Amino acid sequence: MSTEGSVGIVETKYFTFAEAPDKMELEGGHKLGPVTLAYETYGKLSPSGDNAILICHALSGDAHAAGYNSPEDKKPGWWDIMIGPGKAFDTDKYFVICSNIIGGCKGSTGPGSINPETSQPYCLDFPVVTIRDMVDAQKRLVDSLGIKRLLAVVGGSMGGMQVLQWAVSYPNMVRLAVPIATTSRLSPQAIAFDEVGRQAIMSDPDWVDGKYYGKSSPSHGLSIARMVGHITYLSDKSMHKKFARRLQDKAEYDYDFVTDFQVESYLRYKGDAFVKRFDANSYLYITKAMDYFDLPQTYGSLKNAFMQVKSKFMVISFTSDWLFPSYQSKEIVKALRQNDIDVIYTEIKTDCGHDAFLLESEQLTRLISNFLKHGKRRTQQ
Amino acid sequence: MSTEGSVGIVETKYFTFAEAPDKMELEGGHKLGPVTLAYETYGKLSPSGDNAILICHALSGDAHAAGYNSPEDKKPGWWDIMIGPGKAFDTDKYFVICSNIIGGCKGSTGPGSINPETSQPYCLDFPVVTIRDMVDAQKRLVDSLGIKRLLAVVGGSMGGMQVLQWAVSYPNMVRLAVPIATTSRLSPQAIAFDEVGRQAIMSDPDWVDGKYYGKSSPSHGLSIARMVGHITYLSDKSMHKKFARRLQDKAEYDYDFVTDFQVESYLRYKGDAFVKRFDANSYLYITKAMDYFDLPQTYGSLKNAFMQVKSKFMVISFTSDWLFPSYQSKEIVKALRQNDIDVIYTEIKTDCGHDAFLLESEQLTRLISNFLKHGKRRTQQ
Repeated sequence: MSTEGSVGIVETKYFTFAEAPDKMELEGGHKLGPVTLAYETYGKLSPSGDNAILICHALSGDAHAAGYNSPEDKKPGWWDIMIGPGKAFDTDKYFVICSNIIGGCKGSTGPGSINPETSQPYCLDFPVVTIRDMVDAQKRLVDSLGIKRLLAVVGGSMGGMQVLQWAVSYPNMVRLAVPIATTSRLSPQAIAFDEVGRQAIMSDPDWVDGKYYGKSSPSHGLSIARMVGHITYLSDKSMHKKFARRLQDKAEYDYDFVTDFQVESYLRYKGDAFVKRFDANSYLYITKAMDYFDLPQTYGSLKNAFMQVKSKFMVISFTSDWLFPSYQSKEIVKALRQNDIDVIYTEIKTDCGHDAFLLESEQLTRLISNFLKHGKRRTQQ
Repeated sequence: MSTEGSVGIVETKYFTFAEAPDKMELEGGHKLGPVTLAYETYGKLSPSGDNAILICHALSGDAHAAGYNSPEDKKPGWWDIMIGPGKAFDTDKYFVICSNIIGGCKGSTGPGSINPETSQPYCLDFPVVTIRDMVDAQKRLVDSLGIKRLLAVVGGSMGGMQVLQWAVSYPNMVRLAVPIATTSRLSPQAIAFDEVGRQAIMSDPDWVDGKYYGKSSPSHGLSIARMVGHITYLSDKSMHKKFARRLQDKAEYDYDFVTDFQVESYLRYKGDAFVKRFDANSYLYITKAMDYFDLPQTYGSLKNAFMQVKSKFMVISFTSDWLFPSYQSKEIVKALRQNDIDVIYTEIKTDCGHDAFLLESEQLTRLISNFLKHGKRRTQQ
């Protein structure tokens, strides 16, 4: 581990609510309980409780956003470049919370959790959860921490969907909202890629209708799903820069199926690594939650969806992001402005594609730290 | 069948060459023989033999480009909108040949063919073939038809790769070359999508190292490969137009894994339909041939590759094609011009993505018929 600018050693905590009979009501009509959320916090909550920032993670993220869970860890949390002393989310100033999502597989209640009614894993008996359900669960966590109002809710990709839903569902609780590289509804192309991933998982004979816990898991299928996903997180240009058409471990073609381009080896490596850290059923549930998310449909229009919103917004997109293209961020900005909501929009020029929100970026750091600083002042009551 | 503007009933023919001991030498160093090519012809060869046009097909195409193989056929050949009396490839004027490729599964020698040495299907003992090998085989077919010089070689996507290779390998045989929606080398992104498809096939337990002939075929894997491919053939916009976020057979979400967006049903339907007409091993070989194709690498540079070229070119790309983006066509045009080769370049404005070359298009029809007419005159000797 590296300690410079780091929050250091952090512990993942767990919050459980909705114990029977007070189960959580889900958007789809089902009830779920008990519900556990894994979460981490960095920095200290101010006496007035006005410095709390909630970080929402993307599809494959988890509660471990910064620092190290043990001194042996080689890699820090997934957004460590942004969270820590002196960083964009300055833990000397702010109390940063990162919560895992329901449906996930990183310590929160999901399809791999034990169904109290059967004492077996839920598998596909787990109800379909939505982005709103994820946010409702986080709301309970934030309440439990004694926070009345969040200074900011921030997240990229699916995390950005949660940001939008937070501002819509709990307008009085969100002072600043920062949705990054996200959308108010997935494009059919993005749904199509999700469905390819799901088909790959569900076609894997080890999937056995989702009842694979304790047996071999559908690793081939999940690996292929991750490979497809990974292509959509990069851009044509970033792949040219990163791999071009270079071969792996050789200079010339051998004209066989063993010869690999570097991009092939890289994707297979990424796929195989993912299998070790992610649950295939969670992948099904979370991608479905993303596909279902549709603010314009749910609220009649995107303008309507934002009608009650009281947050000040900073919307950020990336020029080369073709999975959540900038036009989708612009739709959000337009609908916010139609409601006279204060919104700053920045399209960051980059070749890094959708993944850009996870990468080191001076511009992103500066935008966010300034927005938090000024936004805090401007939303002071 | 519909007879208007159609070439009518056509018969697929077969040409066999490279019988032992005169096997065909492949680019990868292996020898293959005998080699059979399935092909069709439409129209009549002129007495001077100066009106022959070779059509090269894409990944999943075949020799049946126009007309009907039987009166019961509901659909005509894959480029029937372009080939027939009065159409772009006017069969009243031209003698049109469409040849299947080696490595394929539509009547030509491929991994599913019988290996004369074992009397069993080749399976993965079939040698890796390249675009140059496909073209070399077609050259033998064209020779066998008594054609000294082709008026034109035309094709889209992988067919366009063959067009480029024809002009490079047999400069004296190609008067006009029309590569459409193609590239002199695949991008790493396109290679990555191909690899996802291959992994899906090879992860299917029914693939059994390619030795599935006579048993169940790896249909799940091939279907997923096709689904991925199909997404890359469309564009974000065309998918918005075609499907938007509409649900299949219902108005509202049921919040389950059965509820489908139309785009999901469509892709699964396309995947399942493909499995019935295509061989999984051929999919592996043909995508690998596309990945390996790299004129700049093979000839030192793209300019060098075109040094001996004598054809007049018309290069066509489509604005919304993100699999074979226009910048790749522009690279071809630039390298041709560096060699003082006569080249017309047109970027057709369309939302239809890569698939645009297969769709009805007045502009494409006009461009090609004019180019053939004037080109024939201008290359007259």
